[in-house]
Parts: sequence; structure tokens; C-alpha cells
Amino acid sequence: MLGNFSYHNPTKLYFGENALDFLNEELPKYGKKVQLVYGGGSIKKNGIYDSVVEILKSNGKIIFEDGGVMPNPTADKLREGAKIAKDNDVDLLLAVGGGSCCDYAKAVSVSAYCNDDPWEKYYVRFEEPDCKIIPVGCVLTMAGTGSEMNGGSVITNHEQKLKIGHVFGDNVMPKFSILNPKFTMSLPKRQMTAGIYDIFNHICEQYFSGDDDNTSDYLAEALMKSVVHSSLIAIDNPEDYEARSNIMWTATWALNTLISRGKTTDWMVHMLGQAVGAYTDATHGMTLAAVSLPYYRFILPYGVAKFKRFAQQVWNISAEGKTDEQTALEGLAAMEDWMKRLGLTLKIGELGATEDMLEGIADATLILDGGYKVLSREEVVNILKASL
Amino acid sequence: MLGNFSYHNPTKLYFGENALDFLNEELPKYGKKVQLVYGGGSIKKNGIYDSVVEILKSNGKIIFEDGGVMPNPTADKLREGAKIAKDNDVDLLLAVGGGSCCDYAKAVSVSAYCNDDPWEKYYVRFEEPDCKIIPVGCVLTMAGTGSEMNGGSVITNHEQKLKIGHVFGDNVMPKFSILNPKFTMSLPKRQMTAGIYDIFNHICEQYFSGDDDNTSDYLAEALMKSVVHSSLIAIDNPEDYEARSNIMWTATWALNTLISRGKTTDWMVHMLGQAVGAYTDATHGMTLAAVSLPYYRFILPYGVAKFKRFAQQVWNISAEGKTDEQTALEGLAAMEDWMKRLGLTLKIGELGATEDMLEGIADATLILDGGYKVLSREEVVNILKASL
Repeated sequence: MLGNFSYHNPTKLYFGENALDFLNEELPKYGKKVQLVYGGGSIKKNGIYDSVVEILKSNGKIIFEDGGVMPNPTADKLREGAKIAKDNDVDLLLAVGGGSCCDYAKAVSVSAYCNDDPWEKYYVRFEEPDCKIIPVGCVLTMAGTGSEMNGGSVITNHEQKLKIGHVFGDNVMPKFSILNPKFTMSLPKRQMTAGIYDIFNHICEQYFSGDDDNTSDYLAEALMKSVVHSSLIAIDNPEDYEARSNIMWTATWALNTLISRGKTTDWMVHMLGQAVGAYTDATHGMTLAAVSLPYYRFILPYGVAKFKRFAQQVWNISAEGKTDEQTALEGLAAMEDWMKRLGLTLKIGELGATEDMLEGIADATLILDGGYKVLSREEVVNILKASL
Repeated sequence: MLGNFSYHNPTKLYFGENALDFLNEELPKYGKKVQLVYGGGSIKKNGIYDSVVEILKSNGKIIFEDGGVMPNPTADKLREGAKIAKDNDVDLLLAVGGGSCCDYAKAVSVSAYCNDDPWEKYYVRFEEPDCKIIPVGCVLTMAGTGSEMNGGSVITNHEQKLKIGHVFGDNVMPKFSILNPKFTMSLPKRQMTAGIYDIFNHICEQYFSGDDDNTSDYLAEALMKSVVHSSLIAIDNPEDYEARSNIMWTATWALNTLISRGKTTDWMVHMLGQAVGAYTDATHGMTLAAVSLPYYRFILPYGVAKFKRFAQQVWNISAEGKTDEQTALEGLAAMEDWMKRLGLTLKIGELGATEDMLEGIADATLILDGGYKVLSREEVVNILKASL
């Protein structure tokens, strides 16, 4: 384990088919006024909205509606939500939905009483909140982002063509999250697989960095193996509870800070994918899927040992009689096969990106270090081209 | 993931060579009166005591000494510590030492204001605390028990020849724990290896149970692989910081409730080992090491599939051309080789147990279910005999 670090994750998780019942345990801890955050209305069709409202009412809560959170929540929507929260002095933000709703609720929690414009403060200047923070709770309906147990919050500004994430501290993490794997079963298959790839890529971003021996890398491999195994069951039978429950649990642990402790990390696939998302508004997980393989194939020569380990440990590939690079490449080939079996989109061209966008997407790509190679702008363009 | 469960672990960890500096961040959160809990005085020789006292004083704390906590803290000692805490109205229990000190501090925290006898209430009747609980912090000097991030607390009653653990809730878990791998380097090699086996066995107890596909089992395998790998470096070079830091981190995550989520668990090796400990006062990790292989070889036929998986995933044993039972047995043989390389004690006879004690040890062994076979009393005796 490298360096000095801390770990503190105060989010309480309730998991299982009856997890929603535990909302009754959490609600009495907060005041009466609840801002109910949700998306495009699918929770109204599948009955989750009614169940949540019933529990809120039976706990004597006053509900302030904040629906219509879009898949890539915008800075404009954030300003509206913050106004609802402040005008009504709400006591709890309850996000019912996927990562977008949860990300958005966290952004609202630190924006309601913020004297500045929240987009400028948190997503342009990356400042920390210095105002009252409204507590957030989450009823998760999609597995993928890990937002239910971390401080991450991604907001999109369409005018500026920017999609940026701020990772807030443990005071902004959800106080509780309710994880019922059955709630994720109503999703279309394409949303399920996008979520699965989001999980897998979160793990990759923390794994493909550094060359030390680190317990976190063993944990990362475990989560990758579990999600790959369960995804191949779920793709054929989305109603398989065991598979869906393992996928939901790996999503949470893939991005709640555990597997990055004591190690360096890379986040370039997210930087590339988010820039594609800002231009195309495509589903987050699909943008990651489309840029991953060109990126990893490009950086592989700079981190052969780790890519070889990935091939052996995650994909069970034998290194016998092969060069390290051959073994490493076979690992990425196995990953590609798996991605194809899930039906993931492997080209940004299929997500609406066109050649004339590439320079703009490259401009919108934050270049980070931490990976095996710091990209030049030209290399960013080449990676995007390879995915077109 | 099976059933409905919750996960909440509020302990804040500070990890690394400079972790003790963060005591300055935590101390201001508590009142002035600190009960300083430590063991036989080794922290006075290696300078950790002086460093902690200096930080306490520079933070204006009044120190109430509570040294002499023995490796298996007793009910009598617990009553004394509870009196110190109550008489002085202490605000924080700061345990500086290994798992014994931390276990003891948690026991004191729920006993100071307990109207009952704490041994009777918590360790005989297994009741939950209904009194004021004093917060606990921990500066860990030995890796093994995981007590730094859980609610577990084992107390021994020599008159009754009982060594019993109570797992308290998250309100009793340490508020913070300071983990500096360098602090563990002053330990004698025998203590280091006993701790390593304690870690490994904690993982085994949660792994060898159930036949479902569960993310927790993948995480368990990851922790086992990491601790085995690092232990083989540390046994030759105890000063290897990377190895010792990985060992310390795996210890914490091996027993902080994570890898038992959504699955059944077995705890029979601990039940057997603790009964041996009550009779011999031997080091906890060594009692576990001595009873493990006879126990696992006995239950293997009832859980062949999991023992086969263990052989393949943790010990990299090929199943080709072998029966499942052969592969499974080769896994235990590999585990035995590893235990021998660490110099662990594999016989309870070498820990002071004698044939005439066996019936008594069997009587003191709590028989639990959750494993692949519920033992009869006769089977307990046979396992103990096989370890004599």
C-alpha cells in the first residue's frame, strides 16, 4: 500500500428484496420535508414511485417533487433543483433512480445554500462546499455508477459542451442507500449492459496504474471476475436474481474508494468517454465501452506487466510459451469477446460521434496522469479516430 | 447475494507511515479525559507510548493509565477497566496495541455504565448494551484480529475456562483507527505469523460456507491471495514495508463484515481455537492454526466444490485429470505447506494441551452451524485428538 491515506465511508447500505422496508428505519432520522428526485418517469410505470410515496406518507413526510432528471443531468436542471430545495427548506433529498439521480441529488445538496453559481464553483473551479449540506438518501434502480456509496457527482453543461465530475467528501456521500436487485430488472437490456460496463471500467481505471504489489489490485480482480461471471448469466436471463444481486453489489464496491486505497489510479477512459458524452449525449457506459479498447491497446506497451497479470488473473489466460506482450494482448482480446457477447457499442461512431467532432471532443478531454502513459493531444485524437 | 442485509461501517481509518499524525485530527472531537489502554509495556520500549502521550498532551488531554492488558484479556481486568472509566468519567478510550487491547477497550466502553456484571451480560447472556457507550479509538501495533474496524470483542474467564467473543453493533466499533505498518515491525516473528494466520483464518471462516455464487467469495479469495503472497515476503524480510502494509490492510478487511455480506459463514475453527485458548492461554492465531487442518480435512467431503474452488483460485492448482476431491485435498496440502513455511504451530499438543484436557476443551467448544457439517461432540473430540 503506497503513501498515507484515509478511508471513511459512512453510507449505510440496505440490500435485498425487502430493502425498501428499511426506508421506514431511516426516515424518522430526518425532518418532514423531502425533495423526491427522480428521472423520466419509469418509476411511475413500474410501481416503485407509488411504493416510495406510500412509505413517505406513512412516515408523515411532505413531498416536494423534483422529477425529470435526465440521464446526463445538466447545470440548468441543477440550478432548478437547488431552488426547490432552498425555497422549501427541505430536510432530505431522496433520489429514486440510477446514478444520474443520485449524482444530481448530491449536487443539489451542496448547491441549495451555495452563494455562488454551483456549476462554476464545483465543476469549473473544483472548490469544496462551504455551505449547509442537505442530507441525501438513495433508492437505487440501476446498477453501475456506484454513486450510491461515494461522493461523486457528474454534471453536464451543454452550452459549454462539458461533462465534468466532482468527487465530494464523505459529508456529501448518501447517508443511506437502498439496493434492491429486483428494481434493476425492469431496465432494458441495453441499460443493463451499459451499467455492467460502467462497473467494469471503474475497476479498470483503478487497476491499470502502478506496478507495486497492492491488496487493492487483488480486490479489483475479484470484482472484475465476479461481474464478468454474473454478466454472462444476466445477459441470457436478466431475471436471474443471484446474478443481478452480484452485479449490483460489485457496482457499489467498484467505486466507493476501497479499491483505490494506497495506489495510483488512471481515469482516462472516463475523461475520453465523458467528452464523447458531452458531444453526443450518449449513455455513459456505452461511451466508456467505445473508447476503452483503443485506449488500452495504445497504452499496453507502457504497462505490459499489469496487462499480462490482467490476462492471467481475470481471463484465465495461460502465459506458457508466449511473450508478455502476447499474453497481455490476449487479455484484451478476451475482454473484447466479452464486450461483444454483452452487445456493447464498441465505436463512438455508432453513438453519434462524427469525424468533424473529434477535435472538439479532444479539446473537451481532460488529460490526467496516473496511467501508464500521459497522452498527448494528438494521441487523444488518434484514440478517438480508432474508435470512430 | 443471499437474503436481506445491511452494511454500515463508520470507522475512519488512517493508514501509512505518518498515520499517527492524524491523531491530532481526531482528538479535538472528544473531551479532555482519555483512558490510555495498552498491554505489557512493549510500547514503552519501542517509543510508541512516548509518541502517543506527547500527542495527547499537546492536545491538552488528561491521561488515565490502563496498562497491563493481557493477550487474552480477562473478565476481571475488564471490571477493573470499567471502574477506571466510570470513576474518572473518561471521554475517550484510546487503545494502543494489538487486537487484545482493542477488544478490551470496546468491552470497557459498554461496561463502564452497565448496571449488570459485564461478563454475565455480554459474554454469557449475549445481550446488547443499553447504557452510555464511551467512544473508542485505536492505534494498532499488530495486524491480525481486525478488531480495529469491527464490533468484535473477545474476553476470557479463567475461572469458568471460557473464552467468548461478542460482536457488538456499529455504535461500539472504533470511531477511528490508526494503522502504521511500521508499528507492526517490532513484533517478534512468532507474533507476526500468528497474526497472519488469524487473518487467513478469518477469511476461511467466511469462505467455507454456502454453495451459491457470491461476490463476497471472490473478495475473500483476493484477500487470501494477497496475504499469502505478502506473508512469504515478510517471513524472509520482516522489514519489507510493502509486504507488511498489505498484511495490515488485509487484516482489516478480512473481518470488518464486508466479506460476509449476503452469505452464510462458518466459525467453528474459532470456536475450537478459543476453547483451546481458554485451557492453554496460548496465542490466538496459533490455536487457530493448530485446529484448522484437522477440521477442514474432516469437513471437506461435505463441501467438496468449495474446497476445489479454493485449491484452484487461491493455490493455483490444476484440476486436470483429477477427481474433485483430489483437487480439493491438494488445496489443503498447499495450505499446509504454506503454514509450515511460516513456522506455524500445527498441533495443540505443542501449545500445552494434553489428552486429559480434551473432554474439557470439547465441553468449552460452542458448536455452531453455518459450515458444511454441524459437528457432533464426538467429532469435536476427534478433531482435537487429530491435532494433539
